[in-house]
Amino acid sequence: MKLIIVGGVAGGASAATRARRLSEAAEIVLFERGPDVSFANCGLPYYIGGVIEERDRLLVASPESLRTTFRIDVRLQSNVEAIDRVKKTVLVRDLVTNRSYEESYDKLILAPGAAPLRPPLPGIDLPGIHTLRHMQDMDRIRAAVDQGVKQAIVIGAGFIGLELVENLVHRGVKVALVELQDQILPPLDKEMTTPLMDALKQHGVAVHLGQSAESFTSSGQGIQVQLKSGQTLAAPLVILGVGVRPENQLAAAAGLEVGPRGGIRVNAQMQTSDPDVYAVGDAIESRDFITGDPAQLALAGPANRQGRLAAEHALLGRPVAFRGFQGTSIVGCFQITAAMTGASEKSLRRASRPFHAIYVHPSHHAGYYPGAEAMTIKLLFEPKTGKIWGAQIVGRHGVDKRIDVLAIAIQAGMTVFDLEQAELAYAPQYGSAKDPINMAGFVAAGLLRGDHPQITAADLLALPEGQRPLVLDVRTADEFAEDHLPGAKHIPVDGLRSHLGELPKDRSIVTYCRVGQRGYLAARVLLQHGFEVRNLSGGIKAYRMVVPN
Amino acid sequence: MKLIIVGGVAGGASAATRARRLSEAAEIVLFERGPDVSFANCGLPYYIGGVIEERDRLLVASPESLRTTFRIDVRLQSNVEAIDRVKKTVLVRDLVTNRSYEESYDKLILAPGAAPLRPPLPGIDLPGIHTLRHMQDMDRIRAAVDQGVKQAIVIGAGFIGLELVENLVHRGVKVALVELQDQILPPLDKEMTTPLMDALKQHGVAVHLGQSAESFTSSGQGIQVQLKSGQTLAAPLVILGVGVRPENQLAAAAGLEVGPRGGIRVNAQMQTSDPDVYAVGDAIESRDFITGDPAQLALAGPANRQGRLAAEHALLGRPVAFRGFQGTSIVGCFQITAAMTGASEKSLRRASRPFHAIYVHPSHHAGYYPGAEAMTIKLLFEPKTGKIWGAQIVGRHGVDKRIDVLAIAIQAGMTVFDLEQAELAYAPQYGSAKDPINMAGFVAAGLLRGDHPQITAADLLALPEGQRPLVLDVRTADEFAEDHLPGAKHIPVDGLRSHLGELPKDRSIVTYCRVGQRGYLAARVLLQHGFEVRNLSGGIKAYRMVVPN
Repeated sequence: MKLIIVGGVAGGASAATRARRLSEAAEIVLFERGPDVSFANCGLPYYIGGVIEERDRLLVASPESLRTTFRIDVRLQSNVEAIDRVKKTVLVRDLVTNRSYEESYDKLILAPGAAPLRPPLPGIDLPGIHTLRHMQDMDRIRAAVDQGVKQAIVIGAGFIGLELVENLVHRGVKVALVELQDQILPPLDKEMTTPLMDALKQHGVAVHLGQSAESFTSSGQGIQVQLKSGQTLAAPLVILGVGVRPENQLAAAAGLEVGPRGGIRVNAQMQTSDPDVYAVGDAIESRDFITGDPAQLALAGPANRQGRLAAEHALLGRPVAFRGFQGTSIVGCFQITAAMTGASEKSLRRASRPFHAIYVHPSHHAGYYPGAEAMTIKLLFEPKTGKIWGAQIVGRHGVDKRIDVLAIAIQAGMTVFDLEQAELAYAPQYGSAKDPINMAGFVAAGLLRGDHPQITAADLLALPEGQRPLVLDVRTADEFAEDHLPGAKHIPVDGLRSHLGELPKDRSIVTYCRVGQRGYLAARVLLQHGFEVRNLSGGIKAYRMVVPN
Repeated sequence: MKLIIVGGVAGGASAATRARRLSEAAEIVLFERGPDVSFANCGLPYYIGGVIEERDRLLVASPESLRTTFRIDVRLQSNVEAIDRVKKTVLVRDLVTNRSYEESYDKLILAPGAAPLRPPLPGIDLPGIHTLRHMQDMDRIRAAVDQGVKQAIVIGAGFIGLELVENLVHRGVKVALVELQDQILPPLDKEMTTPLMDALKQHGVAVHLGQSAESFTSSGQGIQVQLKSGQTLAAPLVILGVGVRPENQLAAAAGLEVGPRGGIRVNAQMQTSDPDVYAVGDAIESRDFITGDPAQLALAGPANRQGRLAAEHALLGRPVAFRGFQGTSIVGCFQITAAMTGASEKSLRRASRPFHAIYVHPSHHAGYYPGAEAMTIKLLFEPKTGKIWGAQIVGRHGVDKRIDVLAIAIQAGMTVFDLEQAELAYAPQYGSAKDPINMAGFVAAGLLRGDHPQITAADLLALPEGQRPLVLDVRTADEFAEDHLPGAKHIPVDGLRSHLGELPKDRSIVTYCRVGQRGYLAARVLLQHGFEVRNLSGGIKAYRMVVPN
């Protein structure tokens, strides 16, 4: 069995080492176009920022270790230019000698990755405009910063864009951030990005939402970026982080099926339309775990696991199955962590799936233990069964823990009722007797049982003029004085039972408090006294994420 | 509907507030023997240690808030002395006036908690010997420390014992720790406590394992504690943390069923043998989620959830069901976190369940990002299906996250194959592309598939003389020189393929490395060349947790 692997980073390197573990007899040839294998591309922004101090730390496995320990025939700077699927050969160009040669395969695994998008705009190829994919891109950006660049423009406010912003600011660079969408972190729902927007502003980052770059010109200050709005930004350093494009040319030229967004189509066994050719990693189109729809996702974790599965199926024909992309992702920026798993509200809307959304703001550990900080959890679930569709969390501490718990819950097909019952680890410095996960479960299950009718801030704001409910603030007078919803009536929850006469029975009521707990009790009181009432999910805190002050 | 609740801390307070939320009409009377309701008993050690600075922080809800906000008739210092289940009344003694009176109920919820054990030993009632349950116990211990006590003896090395030790050391107190078992943290398997033992020693704690106190006498230095070994310890402060006893007297006297270990028997709806009387919290006997056997567990999380369920069933008759105890627990001590969920190896042995155990030592986040620290995960699972029985983790960071992920996986009935596929949140400061959870899944699934035959250090040590395998160290020469297993042969993995002739085909081989990865590759090589081989799970690092140097 001769296995050829094209691409030596996450998916390709995993496939190669897995293949060797499974078979001493296999001949394994790994072609990599660049000079490095198996480097930690998720670490590149942190080397630019100086957080990771040694460049060599990013080289997770050396070609030498793959050769010596794993007996893999690693060929660097070797570009696979064509596949002959009938002859079962690849055409390889040695980029050092410029010599071409053929290499035969029994099974072929494609792990070419995805290339950063470089839109064909005027001036896009000017020096000073970078993308970040390889170690060499990183070196160029870092060199610019090391040489004293004081201003930079980052185009694209996705995960890598935000990591770049944080690291540049960390190096004393003043950053402008440009994003085409009307929000940062487009995979998340917009309101969940508000705390990160606040943090960006606090750190002096100029954020330009709903803006695209139209052209680039060279100027005295470096690059001038012309925005769609007409505004011009200028800085010596411009970094594009506007998405990636699957490297599908090799596959497409070989007649392998490619999806409409460019991903190489594979089945659950990672086979392309040619069963002897596999594809893994950022280059593929797989399925969305939640909706079952075709999906592309450039993440290292799935790439690694796909590489393992492909090797196992290619060598041994075992009945492996990749389960699809769940979209679990996380980013840290200026002490704020934002994370998601499963479907977002907007992806559910796009897929026309029925859903409920609830918000809670629990502390990351017991409130009585020093240092407790609130996080905001948005939980999305199916209205009939309570099955969890997805979750988003933003906060300072403990976000990564809860998103991973919810990622597993989604993988298991759990419902919000399961979250109520979850028995999680509690000591005061780690969690709460009612963990944030339990709290989200209580609130969501309360909605489904009819105990806790709720409305989201977005739905409240979307109600037409004639259907506006009475908005009832049940917090203290001090809290009300500090901030309240427009037109809100104020009755603190403690006195509510003796003021029922002041409330209308012929108009629906929305109660709210700071985070949702007192509003819930108020709604319970009113509900049982015959009022039509809902609680504002997540209280004024969630409202202010939709409508910032 | 008149609901009486006996006990106002975790389960009782949760039942009371849940009952009010569910019913405005219910009459709710809460009797509490002590002067406080709803205090954070898990925080008591941290107030002694001065980590929690304000005593009031521990009072999670005040009687006043329960009265005003929740209209609960809270009666403090009121001891319920008897239940008349025929008349449906309780006899209450007001501990302030010493007056007794009857109060009728429709439904009764017992949440009396559990009392610290105070074994009937000579001198046990001497002043200076404390237990820690209430705020007042805490006040006495803290007062002793504030007055300059320099030495203390903690008897019992369970969760509370260890938290006390840490907090006393934090206050400059020299501590001796006495434990009846031959290990600290008896719910965990012994080898998993080794890092905590090391930390205790590093912090100057004298640990006396396999020892019990036989008697206490008053002396010049305070209390003299006579150990079973004959050794005598002395300190002005002695704290007993040797377990708890369900407060079942009221229930037992009323003829309610009580289990052999003292827990009030309840069904999944939290009903005692009298369907109008419920019991929740530390006082009950429920079921073990894994084995289905009767179980008692004094933990705040389950108590809170049981209180909610009891209220829901008592008031509305809803089809609630408590799922039993999973035993998820966690403790932090001297920067080390130890946690478990589900069954331990010893509980599986007791229940005669078949199991496999594997060990991995992954980093808590990407190794290339600064500050990565290893944790040790022990995963226990069913040999045929791979269903997860339980897990234990010890380490410095990220332990709480992984134990919660595994707690949810167990709740969902997941297998080790599901852990392989888990899509968890990865950015370098939070995790790895192959998360510790994935790694545990890979190793466990590899065992079940036959790809990765393994043996635990305990099983290796238990082999009779004639069946000892050849132990093969595949690490570098430097590593071998530093420490190796007794009698180990040394061939580094990189050269293994050219030294196969030196290995016997008629004797089984156990490979090992530092943590298990190179040993795994070596085992794969040997397996495919016809050797009978197993890899030492978790490598010499796991071995040294069983047999410390």
